[in-house]
Amino acid sequence: MTHIKPIIGISMGDPAGIGPEIIASALAKPLPRQLCQPVVIGDAAVMRAATGFAGVKLAVNPIRSIADATCDPAAIDVFDLNLIQGTQLQLGEVSAAAGHAAFESVRVMIDLAMRKQIAATVTAPIHKEALALAGHHFPGHTEIFGHFTGTKDFTMMLAAGQIRVVHVSTHVSLRQACDAVTRGRVLKVIELGFDACRKLGIENPLIGVAGLNPHASDGGLFGTEEAEAIIPACNDARARGMRIEGPQPADTFFPKVVAGAYDLAVAMYHDQGHIPTKLQGFKYDAPSRTWTSVKGINVSLGMPIVRASVDHGTAFDQAGKGTASDASLLDAIEYAAKMA
Amino acid sequence: MTHIKPIIGISMGDPAGIGPEIIASALAKPLPRQLCQPVVIGDAAVMRAATGFAGVKLAVNPIRSIADATCDPAAIDVFDLNLIQGTQLQLGEVSAAAGHAAFESVRVMIDLAMRKQIAATVTAPIHKEALALAGHHFPGHTEIFGHFTGTKDFTMMLAAGQIRVVHVSTHVSLRQACDAVTRGRVLKVIELGFDACRKLGIENPLIGVAGLNPHASDGGLFGTEEAEAIIPACNDARARGMRIEGPQPADTFFPKVVAGAYDLAVAMYHDQGHIPTKLQGFKYDAPSRTWTSVKGINVSLGMPIVRASVDHGTAFDQAGKGTASDASLLDAIEYAAKMA
Repeated sequence: MTHIKPIIGISMGDPAGIGPEIIASALAKPLPRQLCQPVVIGDAAVMRAATGFAGVKLAVNPIRSIADATCDPAAIDVFDLNLIQGTQLQLGEVSAAAGHAAFESVRVMIDLAMRKQIAATVTAPIHKEALALAGHHFPGHTEIFGHFTGTKDFTMMLAAGQIRVVHVSTHVSLRQACDAVTRGRVLKVIELGFDACRKLGIENPLIGVAGLNPHASDGGLFGTEEAEAIIPACNDARARGMRIEGPQPADTFFPKVVAGAYDLAVAMYHDQGHIPTKLQGFKYDAPSRTWTSVKGINVSLGMPIVRASVDHGTAFDQAGKGTASDASLLDAIEYAAKMA
Repeated sequence: MTHIKPIIGISMGDPAGIGPEIIASALAKPLPRQLCQPVVIGDAAVMRAATGFAGVKLAVNPIRSIADATCDPAAIDVFDLNLIQGTQLQLGEVSAAAGHAAFESVRVMIDLAMRKQIAATVTAPIHKEALALAGHHFPGHTEIFGHFTGTKDFTMMLAAGQIRVVHVSTHVSLRQACDAVTRGRVLKVIELGFDACRKLGIENPLIGVAGLNPHASDGGLFGTEEAEAIIPACNDARARGMRIEGPQPADTFFPKVVAGAYDLAVAMYHDQGHIPTKLQGFKYDAPSRTWTSVKGINVSLGMPIVRASVDHGTAFDQAGKGTASDASLLDAIEYAAKMA
């Protein structure tokens, strides 16, 4: 069969969490089918249960080869790894069985993407402790993708609302994050973000760069990284023709970013980029102490394959209830399709 | 004369910036006079010009002693230090003369407060380079107040919208900020924030504490400060009867804070608290590249005197135009009056 739209793999995530049901919910909507041909990588039995949780009328079509995808909008094609035996799975619980199933879904999907059987990948949330119980020690998806694609120079891009931010480092201590701010790494991350903007159709992106230290060191009063690494890296990027503004004091920079002043923001460490992004995408209701909206996506840059992801966790407390929002997943599918 | 309302000193800030005109604008409104008896500390000639810039019909009443304040709502009482000779001042320019005038206004105001002639202090923005040109080397007001009140254990509280955040450190490099996260310092800052909440009328505040590292170190995977300093400090605070939640991953903590889930947030470093606060208070218009709203205030805690401040700078480019907003200053006056 001919695939005109790109085939996008979607890993089911931890089967004890909300991943399978938000996938079922998203695939019952028109947008994904308009943009791509989705194939879920995981477990057919899990996805069948998930359609029930989500309350959607979609058949589950187990396949053992991508070529067997039916592309039927009334069904979910599931590349079935037959991972979970019915009695193994306890919804909302951390378990080795669920962790292993989540891991295998991702590993096989990466393999399919590396062999170009799928054009891009989207990941549903996994649970780090469940992975670890199954013997898979990774802080998150990005590192799994880095490992299995053999990529070293990668970065995490987050997007929500008008903010699109790449990070010089992510899952390291704040002290190690300071060490990671080198001229070469900052330039590399600017370049990865620039390339991503191009893939998204922004020809000549305006890139804003945050400083590491308060007030971007205030001319060297509080720290040396701006003078020694960030300013030289910004100049290197300018010399390559990129439009760069920075380094700027982070606290007044991000209000400009969320207003849409930049096509891309460059953050020096995990929380510097994550705090403003989650403030855009995550809405909390204080009286009921619940999240009312969880939007935003996570894209791995620098890999040989495209990967976009939801920007939230497994939400074990909501699993099986059909209450979790598929908004972030729909955004991730859209990003993956654009970048495929 | 009898002062039923507290006398609040307001330092004029750098006379080449927007400080004097936002003071004139604020004092033409009803709120400050309802809450307190304001006295500007600075220069009568500067304030007279500022009423013109702000377009307000207020007389300027120069006084040499706080006891001479007229408390006339049609006038601005100015404790006149006679600092600026007419020809010295170039609006919008960094100068030693303006820096010295700004510094003297603050220094004299602190002295008046220490001698209990005024009940609280409010500061308009100063310019660090102008201070330095005049030979006064301080990163900001907080450090000037620390120096002249002989205070070592102080902290900066920011407030905007529903967020009220205290900082374990402020004007140091991010590496030094990591070093500053000790059990004793974190507990001290929690206590200072707790005391401030009590002064603001919150009897038993709910206090949320952020982690230092991404994911609050994720159980020790990324950094040791949570286990070694922050968790013990939180436990110390609980043992003293305070309601503490944390340490929490900063990126999902602050969306809860801005939703009003906590009476007080504790940030581990400058930008961790400043990024979410300025995202609440500062609004930017990307097409025109201008700030459309600059709200939020800064309160020094741990000092023997009350000090609140605007949370923005001198905005030299707007000086003399009467376009700068007095919203942040009005908030600061309200906070100072509440805490007086």
